[in-house]
Amino acid sequence: MTLARHWSANPEGSVLVEFGATRVLCTASVTEGVPRWRKGSGLGWVTAEYAMLPRATNSRSDRESVKGRIGGRTHEISRLIGRSLRACIDLKALGENSIVLDCDVLNADGGTRTAAITGAYVALHDAVTWMAGRKMLGGRTVEKVVHRSVAAVSVGLIGGEPRLDLCYTEDVAADVDMNIVCTGEGDFVEVQGTGEATVFGRAQLDALLDLGVAGCADLAEAQRKALSA
Amino acid sequence: MTLARHWSANPEGSVLVEFGATRVLCTASVTEGVPRWRKGSGLGWVTAEYAMLPRATNSRSDRESVKGRIGGRTHEISRLIGRSLRACIDLKALGENSIVLDCDVLNADGGTRTAAITGAYVALHDAVTWMAGRKMLGGRTVEKVVHRSVAAVSVGLIGGEPRLDLCYTEDVAADVDMNIVCTGEGDFVEVQGTGEATVFGRAQLDALLDLGVAGCADLAEAQRKALSA
Amino acid sequence: MTLARHWSANPEGSVLVEFGATRVLCTASVTEGVPRWRKGSGLGWVTAEYAMLPRATNSRSDRESVKGRIGGRTHEISRLIGRSLRACIDLKALGENSIVLDCDVLNADGGTRTAAITGAYVALHDAVTWMAGRKMLGGRTVEKVVHRSVAAVSVGLIGGEPRLDLCYTEDVAADVDMNIVCTGEGDFVEVQGTGEATVFGRAQLDALLDLGVAGCADLAEAQRKALSA
Amino acid sequence: MTLARHWSANPEGSVLVEFGATRVLCTASVTEGVPRWRKGSGLGWVTAEYAMLPRATNSRSDRESVKGRIGGRTHEISRLIGRSLRACIDLKALGENSIVLDCDVLNADGGTRTAAITGAYVALHDAVTWMAGRKMLGGRTVEKVVHRSVAAVSVGLIGGEPRLDLCYTEDVAADVDMNIVCTGEGDFVEVQGTGEATVFGRAQLDALLDLGVAGCADLAEAQRKALSA
Amino acid sequence: MTLARHWSANPEGSVLVEFGATRVLCTASVTEGVPRWRKGSGLGWVTAEYAMLPRATNSRSDRESVKGRIGGRTHEISRLIGRSLRACIDLKALGENSIVLDCDVLNADGGTRTAAITGAYVALHDAVTWMAGRKMLGGRTVEKVVHRSVAAVSVGLIGGEPRLDLCYTEDVAADVDMNIVCTGEGDFVEVQGTGEATVFGRAQLDALLDLGVAGCADLAEAQRKALSA
Amino acid sequence: MTLARHWSANPEGSVLVEFGATRVLCTASVTEGVPRWRKGSGLGWVTAEYAMLPRATNSRSDRESVKGRIGGRTHEISRLIGRSLRACIDLKALGENSIVLDCDVLNADGGTRTAAITGAYVALHDAVTWMAGRKMLGGRTVEKVVHRSVAAVSVGLIGGEPRLDLCYTEDVAADVDMNIVCTGEGDFVEVQGTGEATVFGRAQLDALLDLGVAGCADLAEAQRKALSA
Repeated sequence: MTLARHWSANPEGSVLVEFGATRVLCTASVTEGVPRWRKGSGLGWVTAEYAMLPRATNSRSDRESVKGRIGGRTHEISRLIGRSLRACIDLKALGENSIVLDCDVLNADGGTRTAAITGAYVALHDAVTWMAGRKMLGGRTVEKVVHRSVAAVSVGLIGGEPRLDLCYTEDVAADVDMNIVCTGEGDFVEVQGTGEATVFGRAQLDALLDLGVAGCADLAEAQRKALSA
Repeated sequence: MTLARHWSANPEGSVLVEFGATRVLCTASVTEGVPRWRKGSGLGWVTAEYAMLPRATNSRSDRESVKGRIGGRTHEISRLIGRSLRACIDLKALGENSIVLDCDVLNADGGTRTAAITGAYVALHDAVTWMAGRKMLGGRTVEKVVHRSVAAVSVGLIGGEPRLDLCYTEDVAADVDMNIVCTGEGDFVEVQGTGEATVFGRAQLDALLDLGVAGCADLAEAQRKALSA
Repeated sequence: MTLARHWSANPEGSVLVEFGATRVLCTASVTEGVPRWRKGSGLGWVTAEYAMLPRATNSRSDRESVKGRIGGRTHEISRLIGRSLRACIDLKALGENSIVLDCDVLNADGGTRTAAITGAYVALHDAVTWMAGRKMLGGRTVEKVVHRSVAAVSVGLIGGEPRLDLCYTEDVAADVDMNIVCTGEGDFVEVQGTGEATVFGRAQLDALLDLGVAGCADLAEAQRKALSA
Repeated sequence: MTLARHWSANPEGSVLVEFGATRVLCTASVTEGVPRWRKGSGLGWVTAEYAMLPRATNSRSDRESVKGRIGGRTHEISRLIGRSLRACIDLKALGENSIVLDCDVLNADGGTRTAAITGAYVALHDAVTWMAGRKMLGGRTVEKVVHRSVAAVSVGLIGGEPRLDLCYTEDVAADVDMNIVCTGEGDFVEVQGTGEATVFGRAQLDALLDLGVAGCADLAEAQRKALSA
Repeated sequence: MTLARHWSANPEGSVLVEFGATRVLCTASVTEGVPRWRKGSGLGWVTAEYAMLPRATNSRSDRESVKGRIGGRTHEISRLIGRSLRACIDLKALGENSIVLDCDVLNADGGTRTAAITGAYVALHDAVTWMAGRKMLGGRTVEKVVHRSVAAVSVGLIGGEPRLDLCYTEDVAADVDMNIVCTGEGDFVEVQGTGEATVFGRAQLDALLDLGVAGCADLAEAQRKALSA
Repeated sequence: MTLARHWSANPEGSVLVEFGATRVLCTASVTEGVPRWRKGSGLGWVTAEYAMLPRATNSRSDRESVKGRIGGRTHEISRLIGRSLRACIDLKALGENSIVLDCDVLNADGGTRTAAITGAYVALHDAVTWMAGRKMLGGRTVEKVVHRSVAAVSVGLIGGEPRLDLCYTEDVAADVDMNIVCTGEGDFVEVQGTGEATVFGRAQLDALLDLGVAGCADLAEAQRKALSA
């Protein structure tokens, strides 16, 4: 797992995450104002959009812009990333400003959504640091505003065995597929486990949770290092 | 929880689920053929579409047909229902035929997606029984084809307390919101827990899982009764 | 013909119309404000949206939300319902508020648009009564504001014979198809006669009009009874 | 009323209708094949599309192509024109071929839909004559295939008085608005009367029908002359 | 080349251009206000929309409104026309008002985009004259505001020979296709040369430019005559 | 100008072009089959899609997938890239296979369309080499199939002075903006010059063409080096 900060010149935060052959460009854009339904609340907003380049995958898929609509999977992942990142930030401190996290998969080999969350956290941190430099946090420190770190892993059961960080071919073969989003302190932000090929019992669920929590702890350490570099 | 079977005249299976003030019409439509990507596989397909009438909710929202696009929440729930129902059926037994589960919320007061899953299972069972009557199952019995039951509940943490079956006002107040889909045998099909307002520890997760499993067991019993009526 | 009032918990008016196997849920939603082109006029607005659940019909059709566009038939019927209901209400009395009539066909067996108009009138009446209870009518009585009743029937020529209330199979067989919308006093609000399979002379048109006016009078009576129950 | 035949070089039939300041270009395109739902029936198809140039009207309106969707009024009129023209042709004689009638309003001053029907009939007749020249009618004569003529007028009640051929300012002022489509023999193809501003009694309806039938007879004569020129 | 001014009754400027069998209706609509991104600038705006009637071409194509999206070619030509016409007008003189140029191809036989530019110039001139009559130019003369004329031709290489004004069959056969937009003084506004079938050298480019400049000079003369008639 | 080949793991050809702060990822995907209108011709097809990440630019813009439609600029550039690349390849040699060139701008600072063409050529060459390795070229060599190289530059007039390779701030300031696409032999594939802010004379056009041809020659040399590395 590599987290290359300041990868792009234009955004306030930008991180290229590499994780095996998976490569996701996470940018954080600070924009004035908040969505209409939030106006007058005094609160900021953090949202995310996930997308794949057409040839990120093994065979080319049509662009969603060409199809004229966003698919269910894209929507679902964008919402997951947004919820996860909102868990680590004090929205009041942003004032009525928004941060948009764009997570674009340049090349895909499994675990793109969890890589996106892990990288977006670092890009978000950089964007808040940028805001601090412009005195946009009402005197609060970056650590006060981004009060937790957030990282995510995918785990799965393959042939009954719990496994961390499935690549694409393992992911396809997995009986149970689980995404776990944790804070740097090891609490859960989101837990999503699906057993389309099979169902799973409580003992298996527990083993997957253990493995996921440990995986997230390692990523939290990598994020700390990247941010202090 | 009421499960009124054969509610509509036209579909092969149709169930009106009532759960407090929540009312969902679940219909199961048997259609010839499968989606393009599945042709030639010899396997059938089960898919679901979830929607809300514009005034199912407390204030009217615009129709997605008028907006010209389906929202992220609709997509996400439709996919969840489809995955959950595919866990209880032998797709090979359907031949290259599809069953579409339409879950339309007529009135909403919390728990619409879990009510939809619980009702859709009964509608699916009726549709497969209809197929059996037409000799469309290759000699298999309905119980062989629908080899498990599936039911779902929502649980949440309110003021730190685990609670089953949140109505709309409780749902809004919940710190952690969790949907649990179980088989009649008590295994997990899907587990989705989200803590947007807060994060949660392993002990809280365990308490929510216990409560959810017990709730699903009660619903499985209600489904058995409805199907034997 | 059954008109079940207060069928849904959330809307200001809601009526489940049953007419043979046809079942339409008509809800009336009171919303603040009027469309942009009407702002500043001091007048209210009444509009309608008609839709069918995908499996209301004998074979499943795709959702218009999934297709991303509303079909010609849906548009045409929505406009007819809106025009018909605006004929029975004093729009000035609403102030700059709107009432949206949603007519969703849950099961279809002919005559869905005329059932929708007939039910929507009752839902509209209940919504205006709700407004009266909130002192939103500027001191006017409900009867002053909803100054007429409106009901609709379909009539047709089958084998040269005029027939009232065609079910789906009769509708398909009809040579001439006519929708008649009348007030409780027997005046016309709208007359639409189409002879795709054949043309028709003045005598036949007169016979259809006679039959339709009589059918509307029966429905007006049923509406009166339902509203006084 | 002017009917200028062969106005455009490319289509099989093309007529520029002028009616006061209203100007509609009606083209008839013969295309191989029929819509999917009609394949294998051995029958042809006739359909119509109505549209307005953005500045046909007094103030410019946005293009429907730019808005990305077709409005309700456009749909409704296109369907009316298609139904009306199908009443005058033997679809079996076309074989599995289609004729598309495009009615584009170049300048609008009331009565565009009825002018479109009246002009489209002449364009359709020319297209069928073109087919006859290519031996595409299975030996039938043009008169056998286009076995009736069809024309349309708009009538209305203004201040209680029945009036023929309303221009735009009259149309806006009318209490009742009616479109009448008749054959050359004086039978009805379609009757649509709407009283948004008021309701109307049987006597008024009868007066409007009389006026409309007489107006259609004059147009039928003009069509005969144009086609024999 | 014919330029028929005042062809339509409603628009502020309207010109029917005929050029061989090509026929384009160019209308200029004066509308209050400017696009959102230009508000508060004190400057006006000129924009263009190009479209083809479905049967302008040899075989019928689907309407872009029916397809629900505008194609690449339409976008590209609309942008070209808009840019070209903005080159001849003082946008400051318009105040915060817009002129929309709609160029609708009624019949096509090559050179539709260059005919559209040539006709749109005349329609624009008439619209500005209309504004002058309403004292909307802040005391400036029309000649001061429309300070240049603009015309366009298409040229091409056919069998190595430079040719002016290609009709449809020549256009298809051309090795190199070039559109040249010039002012009445012979300066360039836009030059677009494409060699899809082959590439081209500097000498060939020079020959095409010479031919195009001469062709534009003839059109500028025709525009002057039309405007002084 | 850097051309990093094999940048992504999945596509048949992939090049990251860097040009100042501009960064474009060009991938070439070999897909079986050709568009419908080309089937049965025995010829292959090359097409391109250009897009920008939402935060490639200085301020974030909405995704075209979210807006549900592709803008005019995107269409225009995609078509330009496609035409340019088709000029360098023998489409017959591909058989009925397609190569799709996806040019996604990761960061933008002027000249993105010309950088895209220059990089897409190298990606296309790599994809054809991949096809050669799979014996998909009917025994032809790569040099026979990709029989020319193609590169592009942007030039402009700033304050009357011709300038090569404008960055974003220069581009905005330019009076005349020109894109020139040349072959490695110095012939023209496409010439597009626009003078929105001003018009330009023949001498200025000639100076821009000279500068552009020289710039393309340098890029052709860089392409040769990259491909022989």
